[in-house]
Amino acid sequence: MADAEAFVALTPETLPTKLGGLDVLKTRIGSDPSAWRVREVGDGNLNLVFIVEGPAGAVIVKQALPYVRLVGESWPLPLKRSYFEYNALIRQADRDPGMVPEVFHFDRAQAIVVMEFLNPHIILRQALIRGEILPKIGKDLGRFAARTLFRGSDLSMSARARKEDLALFADNVELCDITENLVFSDPYFEAELNRHTPQLDGLVAELRADRDLKVEAQALKHLFVAKAETMLHGDLHTGSIMVTKNDTKVIDPEFAFYGPMALDVGMMLSNFWMSYFSQRGHEESGSRDEMRRFLIGVIDEIWETFVAEFSHLWRTERTGILYQRSLFEDRGDALGAELALSRVLGDIWTDMLGFAGIEMHRRILGLAHNADFETIADLDLRGACEAAALKFGRHLAVNRRSITGLTALAGLAERLDRGDIQ
Amino acid sequence: MADAEAFVALTPETLPTKLGGLDVLKTRIGSDPSAWRVREVGDGNLNLVFIVEGPAGAVIVKQALPYVRLVGESWPLPLKRSYFEYNALIRQADRDPGMVPEVFHFDRAQAIVVMEFLNPHIILRQALIRGEILPKIGKDLGRFAARTLFRGSDLSMSARARKEDLALFADNVELCDITENLVFSDPYFEAELNRHTPQLDGLVAELRADRDLKVEAQALKHLFVAKAETMLHGDLHTGSIMVTKNDTKVIDPEFAFYGPMALDVGMMLSNFWMSYFSQRGHEESGSRDEMRRFLIGVIDEIWETFVAEFSHLWRTERTGILYQRSLFEDRGDALGAELALSRVLGDIWTDMLGFAGIEMHRRILGLAHNADFETIADLDLRGACEAAALKFGRHLAVNRRSITGLTALAGLAERLDRGDIQ
Repeated sequence: MADAEAFVALTPETLPTKLGGLDVLKTRIGSDPSAWRVREVGDGNLNLVFIVEGPAGAVIVKQALPYVRLVGESWPLPLKRSYFEYNALIRQADRDPGMVPEVFHFDRAQAIVVMEFLNPHIILRQALIRGEILPKIGKDLGRFAARTLFRGSDLSMSARARKEDLALFADNVELCDITENLVFSDPYFEAELNRHTPQLDGLVAELRADRDLKVEAQALKHLFVAKAETMLHGDLHTGSIMVTKNDTKVIDPEFAFYGPMALDVGMMLSNFWMSYFSQRGHEESGSRDEMRRFLIGVIDEIWETFVAEFSHLWRTERTGILYQRSLFEDRGDALGAELALSRVLGDIWTDMLGFAGIEMHRRILGLAHNADFETIADLDLRGACEAAALKFGRHLAVNRRSITGLTALAGLAERLDRGDIQ
Repeated sequence: MADAEAFVALTPETLPTKLGGLDVLKTRIGSDPSAWRVREVGDGNLNLVFIVEGPAGAVIVKQALPYVRLVGESWPLPLKRSYFEYNALIRQADRDPGMVPEVFHFDRAQAIVVMEFLNPHIILRQALIRGEILPKIGKDLGRFAARTLFRGSDLSMSARARKEDLALFADNVELCDITENLVFSDPYFEAELNRHTPQLDGLVAELRADRDLKVEAQALKHLFVAKAETMLHGDLHTGSIMVTKNDTKVIDPEFAFYGPMALDVGMMLSNFWMSYFSQRGHEESGSRDEMRRFLIGVIDEIWETFVAEFSHLWRTERTGILYQRSLFEDRGDALGAELALSRVLGDIWTDMLGFAGIEMHRRILGLAHNADFETIADLDLRGACEAAALKFGRHLAVNRRSITGLTALAGLAERLDRGDIQ
């Protein structure tokens, strides 16, 4: 058992000694570990993250801790999340090459993943708060979603390999539990860990009394736990994406598990919509109109790219046990396969909207808030931005079956954002 | 590893020596194994089944073989199916006590389950072919479905236990593969193992050209592989049920896995509908009108009992992570929980009809046929019975979203059966 070896948390001082014997690191950093420079830079909620630099280059050393870093030892969280992160990273690298950091070394007992140092990348959420236009982001993320979701499913994999991965990631109980509680349930009642901007009190009470919304949130939770379609990233918000103008990388897949295809797409779009609703709060010296147009464009582009790439893979890589070619193309019935594709994409669309709506609520009403809104110092302004997002999210979640396209949603978002309707 | 011990198939001659040392058997059969009487009675497609009798009583010894018994060593099938059967039996016994044979002993390496000898039970399908009225069957099966499906899901279990069972049964790849191919795909193209009554040639060609039906069958397969809601029996037809007038037992759960709640219910109702459509073929000396009324009544009773018991468990045992009481009853919103129940049951209804339709097709067009139809010697008559069932099944599968209740279906079945419509 790998777990029998005692876990020891790394420090900047001990890291060169502990990892200095690895050739793969000496090659990438420098052959003399005593000359490595180590900085701990983890700003997330869960893990230690070190940048290790030397004459030959730099790497990232990420180590899980046996508890939630943000909270402390009172909230234990198993080290095995590192194992799921590693397994997700190597699968994503295979399914959409170049879109995740390269893994150089994995140590299961010490919960360490050594990987590519992304430089000069910054977190996408920070770029969006600054108002940066990123020309490649929509296409990159749409393709990433299509490729990872399609290629991790029974549309592509052998039934045996897919079921083996289902079983592997089914052990990621504790991180799924975080999502099950913090995303789908806590925002809709007075759970202990919740917090929200005081200006929202009235709206929050209204949402928590909204029976249709609660039922819909639980129906989406039902999909989350029981629609085991594909390997998801599981936490694909704009804080899990690093960017330059010309490059996009998806990081931190430790929430990976087998769930509904629509979740990753919905969580991404939701975080772009939240960025949209937060722009007014960052409009210090002039207009963010161009940024708003960019964000609406990115949302369109992610979805359209996802549909186009998923459809391409459907037509060219459908080698799994679902919607087999032997029933359609091989019998001269390509149309049947296209109609089935349309149904599958229709289901993803409907569920995607629901997950997007719920994600907006939990980021404003639950434990884990977004810097997009949190960095708006004026609480009245912050509350106004958040209120528009909450109402938009409620519409997405409850009316998702009758929403026909993104254009109408962009119009609604604009009117809510301007305060034309409340 | 349990599998390291060499597997040896039992024979009536070797069985007393191999199992004679087990106290649990000596107590139930007789203390002198040399006095045990052993008969091999397996009439299924896959396994060895022995009745072992002695002065103290009798037991069933079921042993898997490393291949499909019906076909031979050319179709290998792993011994581990016995492990899944054992695990399913003990869970079902816990979830609906008294409805499955009691397990006395399990040997994983030898793939042996020793269990209760059901006497004077006969296979339900045989009873229905004979025209026997069974007054308890509808309530027993409706309750069994509700209790096993509810109690194996995230509505009831802890998230950890549910995910552990998901992973355990995810290894039942080979038996799932049988269903994935033989039920959902092979019937809809000219697969090698298919056969059908020659009188159906025209209708079979029509169904295999039916694009909507093919797409629907694959959409149902998509649910089968990816809607991992609960531990299913997985093969719950009338040949997997043993009965007396006063007792019902469900046997042979080796196809158990985590799948959609609707599958077990749909497969059961489908087999009662097939019995209905086959009655005309067994109407030798007078009328089966009473039997037909009984079967329509059983179908109603299974569904109504399922709904009533599932609703009862929803109100009294909803202790899992889905539709938590903390969001509904605990906040004075019992109505919200009832509306959510109505949605969950509505989804089960719709999917159940689809699975029922597909099951009718695969039993008439695929590899594994039903004795209900196969025992009708007159091929014209058999074909007429099967044609009505195929048309009824096509309606269930394709129009399942707009079918509102069982009464209209009973009327349609009657008109198809009488030849009023074709």
